[in-house]
Amino acid sequence: MSYKERLQTWRDRMSEELDRVMNFWIQHSHDEEYGGFFTCLSQNGDIYDDLKYIWLQGRQVWMYCHLYRKVSKFHKEEILNAAIKGGEFLLAHARPNTDSIKCAFVVTRDGQAVKVQRTIFSECFFIMAMDELWRTTKEDQYKEEARKTMDQIVYWVREDSSGLGRPELPGAAPVNAMAVPMMLLNLVDQLSEEDEEAAKKYEDLRKWSTERILQHIQRDGSAVLENVSDEGKELPGCLGRHQNPGHAMEAGWFLLRQAIAQSNHDLGRIAVEKFVLLPFLSGWDQEYGGLFSFQDVDGHCPTQLEWSMKLWWPHTEALIAFLLGYQATNDPQLLEHFQKVFDYAFSRKSDPKHGEWFGYLSREGKVALSIKGGPFKGCFHVPRCLYMCEEILSKLLAECDKT
Amino acid sequence: MSYKERLQTWRDRMSEELDRVMNFWIQHSHDEEYGGFFTCLSQNGDIYDDLKYIWLQGRQVWMYCHLYRKVSKFHKEEILNAAIKGGEFLLAHARPNTDSIKCAFVVTRDGQAVKVQRTIFSECFFIMAMDELWRTTKEDQYKEEARKTMDQIVYWVREDSSGLGRPELPGAAPVNAMAVPMMLLNLVDQLSEEDEEAAKKYEDLRKWSTERILQHIQRDGSAVLENVSDEGKELPGCLGRHQNPGHAMEAGWFLLRQAIAQSNHDLGRIAVEKFVLLPFLSGWDQEYGGLFSFQDVDGHCPTQLEWSMKLWWPHTEALIAFLLGYQATNDPQLLEHFQKVFDYAFSRKSDPKHGEWFGYLSREGKVALSIKGGPFKGCFHVPRCLYMCEEILSKLLAECDKT
Repeated sequence: MSYKERLQTWRDRMSEELDRVMNFWIQHSHDEEYGGFFTCLSQNGDIYDDLKYIWLQGRQVWMYCHLYRKVSKFHKEEILNAAIKGGEFLLAHARPNTDSIKCAFVVTRDGQAVKVQRTIFSECFFIMAMDELWRTTKEDQYKEEARKTMDQIVYWVREDSSGLGRPELPGAAPVNAMAVPMMLLNLVDQLSEEDEEAAKKYEDLRKWSTERILQHIQRDGSAVLENVSDEGKELPGCLGRHQNPGHAMEAGWFLLRQAIAQSNHDLGRIAVEKFVLLPFLSGWDQEYGGLFSFQDVDGHCPTQLEWSMKLWWPHTEALIAFLLGYQATNDPQLLEHFQKVFDYAFSRKSDPKHGEWFGYLSREGKVALSIKGGPFKGCFHVPRCLYMCEEILSKLLAECDKT
Repeated sequence: MSYKERLQTWRDRMSEELDRVMNFWIQHSHDEEYGGFFTCLSQNGDIYDDLKYIWLQGRQVWMYCHLYRKVSKFHKEEILNAAIKGGEFLLAHARPNTDSIKCAFVVTRDGQAVKVQRTIFSECFFIMAMDELWRTTKEDQYKEEARKTMDQIVYWVREDSSGLGRPELPGAAPVNAMAVPMMLLNLVDQLSEEDEEAAKKYEDLRKWSTERILQHIQRDGSAVLENVSDEGKELPGCLGRHQNPGHAMEAGWFLLRQAIAQSNHDLGRIAVEKFVLLPFLSGWDQEYGGLFSFQDVDGHCPTQLEWSMKLWWPHTEALIAFLLGYQATNDPQLLEHFQKVFDYAFSRKSDPKHGEWFGYLSREGKVALSIKGGPFKGCFHVPRCLYMCEEILSKLLAECDKT
């Protein structure tokens, strides 16, 4: 197969798969009565629970708006209306306490708070939903909500976290967990899209987040560790040795996107070498294929029960990372790695009959959980990956035609 | 093999295995410098983390004292001293806040609090440690600590839980989670051993806990559900349909112990039929053997990633439940089920080379995590099971000799 034929084959599969994935969510997840989305969906789309997880509500609103804005075939009333109803559900119910920005982690179908986490992530996905909804509808209220919430989480992260409700404990030194600067960098990108004023406002935060991510390169550049000290040093014990290959690769493409936007060649090289290639080479299961969920940098057995399971999202992040890396560098080895992940994911996770991917395979690659959605899996990683890959592949194909 | 030979074979295996398991902990887990125990131990006993989980500290103190008191071969200075040093570690460090009974969930090696859970379980294992230490050493301080902490958790459970720090949320109706009355019933047994005054004091709590456990029999007696409403009704969604076969069987032998002590034939029958046989028959994996960790009573796929993994402790609880059930009823089917669980556990979980059991097998029965101890696995379920089974088998053998 020629280079161009390979690109075409991949692009067609991505496009076809994206249709099937989005059909799954459009057909099964809309709550017409209360707004928002059902995400606890079985293999064939049946609703097995009606709780609403705020991360997933926010992510689905974002995904719907993004596709509505960017892809003509998804520019449909049905998608816009569901997104707006999801946004309104969030505005009405995400915050259990009317005088606080703090969002719930999960609410009942009709919006009553069930659980509140003492972290910033529900709020982060709330911001993504609101900002994207503003870009889609131009309703200022959504923009204001996004900006107000962003100010609050930046304060919690950089000034004073006591508002999150976590007690300070003498044995728990401050940790730079990679999720936090990754999330913030992603939000800066989101809020700054075609908005110079926002880009300026968040310039310092962008730099800070990038630096905090780069602190996770440890052991003389030979490994990315998920948690480091506030000063960027390795932490003792399991916490310090913990690795999350999929997360590192997601950070990789976040950094790569920065590098491309800023024509920062050094940052691009670090992103590909340290955050994409290193975690892939150590995190790929040589025996059964697929990316491990967690590893211990010294080779100890991780204590997380699912460490060797093959989850959907590390594979979607790897696909984006390799393709974006190839687009930036033209390094052919990245395309070979992309092929490997593509073959694994499309042969084992795709479900042509019902749509959407299986999220949880055993180490050996068998479906361990048949659910398509649940408390942590919604309409986000798979369609984001398919959309982004289709877009990059289209650009690469357009370049082929030019030459 | 004759009936007596079967009993002898099992008893000898239990006894030999108990020696090997206890040697593992005695050899590898004692922290001579700070007191307490290392529980993050690899397959061969190497320490891969030095955090101290309070549940496991309390359980190991309890186990050491209990064996010291009850089994002559473990009546050794080394075991007593380690237990006392563990108890003193708990007294000095389990409570991060000197003016509160609330215990930490995990502390650093030298005892600084890392994390506090908003539940009662750290405190429960603290009580078990203190009470057993009092029975072993006759030092009144330990008894007072146990009684004082018990009063507090009974207050949290039955009067006002706000001291645990969990906010009340409108979507989270009060739940009767089986773990709570099970734990309390176990503590009542612990505190009342050969102590009529305590037995009297806790009589009402014993009844209340038993009733709260029995409320988990649902669906016209066809299933035990892990969570029910405060009024003992089935709850909606995954939470309501959740089943934990190992936990139900542990509740089964807690109830059976009550029934035997009170010569309550009806309670004994319910314990065996509903809490031992039902969960075993639905929870045993017909394809690969072993007990599932979690199930959904309607057959939906559970959302817990480890639902199909074969963990150590459901199997230890099943072994105790079947043997105690047989002792109480002479029903031969219970002995056949015991054989099945025994064969599975001893062939797949035991590690003759290094001692202690593998805790985490895949659905297919392969070792998925090679660790022998970790944040949730310490010196408790395996030796408690081996000790109790050896004791019951010895009694059954003594009865053989009588007839």
